[in-house]
Amino acid sequence: METLPDDMVAALGGIVGANHVLTGETTAGYVSDWTGRFHGRTGAVVRPGSTAEVAEVVSLCAANDITVVPQGGNTGLVGGGIPGLNGDARNVVVSLARLDGLGPVDTAERAVTAGAGVTIEQLHSHVAASGLAYGVDLASRASATVGGTIATNAGGLHVVRWGATRAQVLGIEAVMADGSVISHLQGLRKDNTGYDLAGLLCGSEGTLGIVTAARLRLVPRHEHTTVAVVGFTSLVDAVEAAGQWASAVPGCQAVELFVDEGLDLVCRHLDIAPPFATSWPAYVLVEAAGVDDPTERLAAVVVATGGVSDVAVGRTAAERSRLWRYREGHTEAISIEALTAGSRSGATQGAVHKLDVTLPHAHLAGFIAAVGAQVAQVAPGARTWLFGHAGDGNVHVNVTGLPGDDDTVDAVVLTLVASLGGSISAEHGIGVAKMPWLHLSRSPAELAVFASLKRALDPAGILNPGVLVPPVR
Amino acid sequence: METLPDDMVAALGGIVGANHVLTGETTAGYVSDWTGRFHGRTGAVVRPGSTAEVAEVVSLCAANDITVVPQGGNTGLVGGGIPGLNGDARNVVVSLARLDGLGPVDTAERAVTAGAGVTIEQLHSHVAASGLAYGVDLASRASATVGGTIATNAGGLHVVRWGATRAQVLGIEAVMADGSVISHLQGLRKDNTGYDLAGLLCGSEGTLGIVTAARLRLVPRHEHTTVAVVGFTSLVDAVEAAGQWASAVPGCQAVELFVDEGLDLVCRHLDIAPPFATSWPAYVLVEAAGVDDPTERLAAVVVATGGVSDVAVGRTAAERSRLWRYREGHTEAISIEALTAGSRSGATQGAVHKLDVTLPHAHLAGFIAAVGAQVAQVAPGARTWLFGHAGDGNVHVNVTGLPGDDDTVDAVVLTLVASLGGSISAEHGIGVAKMPWLHLSRSPAELAVFASLKRALDPAGILNPGVLVPPVR
Repeated sequence: METLPDDMVAALGGIVGANHVLTGETTAGYVSDWTGRFHGRTGAVVRPGSTAEVAEVVSLCAANDITVVPQGGNTGLVGGGIPGLNGDARNVVVSLARLDGLGPVDTAERAVTAGAGVTIEQLHSHVAASGLAYGVDLASRASATVGGTIATNAGGLHVVRWGATRAQVLGIEAVMADGSVISHLQGLRKDNTGYDLAGLLCGSEGTLGIVTAARLRLVPRHEHTTVAVVGFTSLVDAVEAAGQWASAVPGCQAVELFVDEGLDLVCRHLDIAPPFATSWPAYVLVEAAGVDDPTERLAAVVVATGGVSDVAVGRTAAERSRLWRYREGHTEAISIEALTAGSRSGATQGAVHKLDVTLPHAHLAGFIAAVGAQVAQVAPGARTWLFGHAGDGNVHVNVTGLPGDDDTVDAVVLTLVASLGGSISAEHGIGVAKMPWLHLSRSPAELAVFASLKRALDPAGILNPGVLVPPVR
Repeated sequence: METLPDDMVAALGGIVGANHVLTGETTAGYVSDWTGRFHGRTGAVVRPGSTAEVAEVVSLCAANDITVVPQGGNTGLVGGGIPGLNGDARNVVVSLARLDGLGPVDTAERAVTAGAGVTIEQLHSHVAASGLAYGVDLASRASATVGGTIATNAGGLHVVRWGATRAQVLGIEAVMADGSVISHLQGLRKDNTGYDLAGLLCGSEGTLGIVTAARLRLVPRHEHTTVAVVGFTSLVDAVEAAGQWASAVPGCQAVELFVDEGLDLVCRHLDIAPPFATSWPAYVLVEAAGVDDPTERLAAVVVATGGVSDVAVGRTAAERSRLWRYREGHTEAISIEALTAGSRSGATQGAVHKLDVTLPHAHLAGFIAAVGAQVAQVAPGARTWLFGHAGDGNVHVNVTGLPGDDDTVDAVVLTLVASLGGSISAEHGIGVAKMPWLHLSRSPAELAVFASLKRALDPAGILNPGVLVPPVR
C-alpha cells in the first residue's frame, strides 16, 4: 500500500506549522466515520489556519500527484470525507476545523460570513442576538460545520420552511484543484453575473473545490415557537397530514414523522416516558414559529385533519425540547440498538446502514409500509427503522443488525425507492456509499455531464477521488 | 459575411417541418430586441415541436460547425438571445416557442412541469385554479417564457418573498451541446444526487445547454393581497424603509422604489393622475399577501416607519392594479421618453440603456443620488431614470437620449456600482451587453472557472457564442 513520500510531511508542516500536521495514530479520528461503517487510511491530516494555507497545501499535493480529502466535522453518512478507503494512504486530509472565523452579523443585508470550520451550533449562537437565525438546523449541529454542510448541501429539520443549505448560500470562497482561490463573499441578494459557482460547489462533496468560507443568508428569528406531537390512527393519515401541514400550517418550519416501533425504541433506550398513554401506528411532529404565538393557528389545522387521535403541545423551550426528543432521539436509540443487535447476531457491532431517501408524496406511505418486509427477506437478522422529514417526502431508512460491508440491503431499499420515482439521496449526498446506485437516480447523459464537470475543474483527479463521480485516473 | 450552407435549411426543415423554418425577412422578429439596442442576423430560425427535435437540430448544427442561439420570448435586455451581432448569419436560432406543454398541477408535491415555450402569464393562469401560484412574476410576463427566464435566472417582482427563478426550479430538461438530452423532471423537493445541473443551467444564458422543460416549485396562492404606495420625505428614508419592510412586513412579497422624476414621467406619458396631491422625493410600493387580510399588519409597520408622509392603499384587484401602474408604467413611459429624446437630440430613437444593478443596502441611497450626475457628465444629452426592486438592493438604471452603441455611460454606471461593492447584474444577466464589465464583478479566478465549465460542456463552442463567456473558438 502506498503512503506519502517522506519529505511531504515536512513540506506540509512548512505550510501549516508542524503542530498542525497529524500522522500515524493521531489521525484515527479522521479516518473513520462515527457510525463505524467506513474505515480508511491517510498519510497525513493537515489543519490549515487560513484559505491561503489551504491553497498552498492543495498546490503542493497537486504538484506531487497526491490526492486531497477535505473534511469538516466528519458527521457525513456516506463516506464522502473518509480518506483511503481502499487502504491507500497516499493522500492528505485537509481538515477545515481551524477556519472558524465569524464575521459580524449584517442585519441590513441579513447575512453573515462564516469560515468553513464554524459549527452549525456556533453559527446559531453567533447570530442569536441579532434577531436573525440561520435557516439550517440538524441533529449533528454541535459537530457539523459550515463547510461540510455546504459541500454536502445538508438538509435537516427546517427544509420545509427555508430550504436546504444551497438555498442559504449567497456566496462562497473555495480553493480549486489547481490551488487557485475563488472568492465571492459580497453576499448580495441578487447577483446574476454568470454561472452559479456557489450552487455548483454546494453539494459537490469536495470533488470540485474545497469550500473555505461562505456568505450565508439569515432568516427572521421568531419569538414564538410551538411544537405538537400528534398520534395518528393510521400511517396513511399521518403521511397525508405531513404532506399538507408543511404548507397548511402558518409558519410551519418542521414536519417530522416517526412510527410506533421507533418511538418504543427511543423510550426504551433513552429511558423516557412516551408522549401518550396509548400507542399509535404513526406520529407527526410539527413545529411552527412566528412573530405572534402560532399555537392557535397550528391547533386549528391539526384538529381539522383526518386521523388525528392524540395531541401533545409544547410552547416553552423545555416542553418543545421534550417533544423533539422523541424524534431526535431516534439516531441515538438506533445506535444503541445496533450495538445490541450486533452482539446478538454477530453482525458488525454498531454498524447502522443509514439510507435517506425521498419519495413522491403519493408513494410515501406505501414505501414505509413495504420496505421493512423487503429488507427482512434479504437480511433476516436485520431490523428496519423509519423516521424523517416527511414534510418534504424525505424518510430515513436505518437498518441495524447488518454486516457493515454488506450492500445487499442498500440495493433492495434504493431499487424500491427508484421504482417508485424517488431519489436515492434526499440530503446525505452520494459519497462512496451510494456510488453503486447513482444510476438509479441519474441517467447516463447526466452522469456524463457530471464526469465532464469533474474533468473540467479537477483534471488530475486530485480532489476526493472516488466520491460522487468515478475517479478521473 | 458568412451564412448557412444551402442544404442546411432543407435539412432543418426535415427535422422540424419546412413550415417551422424561417429565413430572410421572416426572421426579423428574432434578430432584434424590443428595446432597439441589439440587431443581428441569422441564417434560419427553427421552431422545433419537441425536445427530440431540439436535440436533432443541435446535433445537425454541431456536425456542421454552425452555432446555435436559443431564444424564448425575446424579452431579454442584454442581447443574450440575439444571433449574429457581428453580422455573421452562419447560425441557427432555435425558438422554443412551440414547446408550450403544461402538465397537471401536482397539488400534493406543489409542483408543475412546463415546457420552455410556456409564457409566465400562461403558467400563472394554468396554476391559478389549484390554490397555488408560481413564485416568479415580472412585467414582461405575457412574452417572457419558462425557458428564457430559467436561462437568465430572471428575478422580477416577488424575489423578496420567493427568490429568483433558480429557487423555483426543482428539475430541468435540457439539450446539451453534443445533442444529448438530460432530463430530471421528477421534481422531488429533496434530491441530493450529485452536481446541481439545474442550478448551473439556470442563469447560464444558453451557453451550456438549451432548456426545453422544467419542473417548477409552486407556492401558496394567497386570498388576500394589499398594496400600499408610500410617499417619503427623503430618498434616504425611502431606501431605509425598503430594506426593512422586506423582512418586517408579514407576508411581504414586493418592495419597489421609484422617485419623483420617474413618477412625473409615468403620469405625463401614460396620462394618469398621481397618487397624492403633493409630490415627494421618493416612493415605495409594498405588497403583502396572506391567508388573512394583511392590511392591518402592513399598515402597522408602515405608520411606524420614519419619513412616511403619504400612503395610498389598494385592496381590490382594481385598486392594486392602479397603484402598480405607477411602478410598472416606468418601462413604457421611459420608452416613450426615449423616442421623444431621440427626436430631440439626434440620439438613436428609442434606444434605452437598461442597467440593472444591486447595491449593498448601505450604499443604495448614495448611489441613487449620485449616478444621474455622473451620467450627465459624460453624456450631457442623456437622462437617467431610477426605479426598481429596492427590497433586495436592486435598482434599474435606465438612460435615455443615448446612441444605442455608445457604452460610455454603461462604463460609468457599472464602475460606480462595483466601487460600492455592488453587482453589475442583479437579474438581467450578462449577455453581450455586460461582457466588457464582467471583470468588475468576477475575479480572474472565477472567470477561469467559467471558461473551464464552458469548454467542458460545449467544447466546440456551438451554443450562444460570445455570450457570458468569451468564445471558445
